[in-house]
Amino acid sequence: MSQSTENWAERVCLGDVRAIARAITAIENHEAAAEELLRRLFPRTGKAYLTGVTGAPGTGKSTLVDRLAAHYRAKQEQVGVIAVDPTSPYSGGAILGDRIRMQGHASDSGMFIRSMATRGFLGGLARATAEVSLLLDAAGKQQVLIETVGVGQDEIDIVRLADCVVVMLVPGMGDDIQNMKAGLMEIGDIFVLNKADREGADRLEQQLNAMLSLVMPRDGWHPPVVRTVASENKGIDALAETIGRFGKHFESSGERKRKHVEHWKERLIELLESRLLQRALGGAGGEGRLAELAEEVAERKKDPFSAVNEILKSSGLNGMT
Amino acid sequence: MSQSTENWAERVCLGDVRAIARAITAIENHEAAAEELLRRLFPRTGKAYLTGVTGAPGTGKSTLVDRLAAHYRAKQEQVGVIAVDPTSPYSGGAILGDRIRMQGHASDSGMFIRSMATRGFLGGLARATAEVSLLLDAAGKQQVLIETVGVGQDEIDIVRLADCVVVMLVPGMGDDIQNMKAGLMEIGDIFVLNKADREGADRLEQQLNAMLSLVMPRDGWHPPVVRTVASENKGIDALAETIGRFGKHFESSGERKRKHVEHWKERLIELLESRLLQRALGGAGGEGRLAELAEEVAERKKDPFSAVNEILKSSGLNGMT
Repeated sequence: MSQSTENWAERVCLGDVRAIARAITAIENHEAAAEELLRRLFPRTGKAYLTGVTGAPGTGKSTLVDRLAAHYRAKQEQVGVIAVDPTSPYSGGAILGDRIRMQGHASDSGMFIRSMATRGFLGGLARATAEVSLLLDAAGKQQVLIETVGVGQDEIDIVRLADCVVVMLVPGMGDDIQNMKAGLMEIGDIFVLNKADREGADRLEQQLNAMLSLVMPRDGWHPPVVRTVASENKGIDALAETIGRFGKHFESSGERKRKHVEHWKERLIELLESRLLQRALGGAGGEGRLAELAEEVAERKKDPFSAVNEILKSSGLNGMT
Repeated sequence: MSQSTENWAERVCLGDVRAIARAITAIENHEAAAEELLRRLFPRTGKAYLTGVTGAPGTGKSTLVDRLAAHYRAKQEQVGVIAVDPTSPYSGGAILGDRIRMQGHASDSGMFIRSMATRGFLGGLARATAEVSLLLDAAGKQQVLIETVGVGQDEIDIVRLADCVVVMLVPGMGDDIQNMKAGLMEIGDIFVLNKADREGADRLEQQLNAMLSLVMPRDGWHPPVVRTVASENKGIDALAETIGRFGKHFESSGERKRKHVEHWKERLIELLESRLLQRALGGAGGEGRLAELAEEVAERKKDPFSAVNEILKSSGLNGMT
């Protein structure tokens, strides 16, 4: 088992597409082997540069990510793309579209593309995305692009994993910049004004710059606005240059280190939670007892705090308090 | 302390506005007293009917909730309104707007209105909303209306707390129903077509009904479409009637019980997690040790799984595995 995991890890490090794909499936299914594999791969990670791309539906995220990926490939960089859709356990259309779109790269071994949906994750999508990023990092992808479908809080949590967050806007979406999803302004390191050949682009850029001028620069970085027409490959070089420039700034200001420590703090807490929960409920009859207690609480025979204390007691975790 | 909590609980049950407001603040601030209070109040809960109202910004949620509240008040029912904004820790504009809007009810003791934002909750907003719902339930509010600002995953998690979920749409939002946030279709028990006097209302209703006809009825309930012009108080009676009808169906089909047990299962797990985390990290130096370990992991001196095992060991929670 451990021997085969070592083998598997080696193949991942060599960029073997099937080994990577199998590892992602293991991560998605919470297989014990995934943890062993990630533990083995972990020392090989920390080299990839993660760029998160978010924005409302219709801003052209997929096209932009596609062009950006092609740009990096032309420079001989290895690229990984993770397209994430946290909107629904039932959805799949957008993801399917991505797959079709990306087929042009299917024969390029320097490019790995994977879609991830919520199915079965129950909020663990950010965790799974983080683990797949580590995997692609270990597999030697220098550029990892994380693309989300929408701009919900989950998407924000996911792109926050990235070293550099690109927020996309387009002119004439009917919604004024004033209605821009709160929270997006705060997380954007770079703003892309896509479909910049459309009417209203100048006005949107002005509005955006006016709003950005009110935002305090973070560690000396003023988020710039880059104009693109992704469908015509315009502005992609400038965007890649800006992303690279942010990376250098991010590194030299010490912000990269600070952000990574913060990220790992959160991840350790999550891991800790899932370990402890496993211990509290993982024993024989744990799940069944939980269901019984939930029923008693729903019927007001017991209050939730007493119910939890019971679980803690019976799992032997009630030692100290 | 316990004596004064008993007093406090009694005043909440009598509907004392200041006692309720103080309890909400205690919940928001994770005060230990909040738990003692909720434990005491718990047997008095389970009577309120919770209606969640969600929909894109601009669909008129606030106005509709306002009118619905007035409708229930006219029928001598006690009403609680919770307006939730999970979009940003920084926001507050919409919330402030709600407060101003609701001032008309300020002198009505049968109506309690509270806004809640993400500030300091870090994902705990659904939990806090659930606890405030319990509180208003204990305070004798027969109708509790939970209104969200947007339609992100967090909002969906929040309205899922409710017994009845109302999803709002308006004609001519620029976005076709095809672009409707995935996940909304699945959670709606009732769809409200607001601003139904606008152009495009008939077409939207047709589209909506066509889509709903594809959705499997849940326990024999086909989500109906109710047309309203909330700003002119049109359709509110019909909506209230439909909400009431759903409630009866929900009760008699056994779905209410099933949903409540499911809800309590999730809540017990959350409570369990926070208890265990408190135990693992709450000791002297726990937070500091976590920060140190996160730094070692960020520098790849240690893998995250080993780091978590260290925390478990040092907190004495590593007993069994």
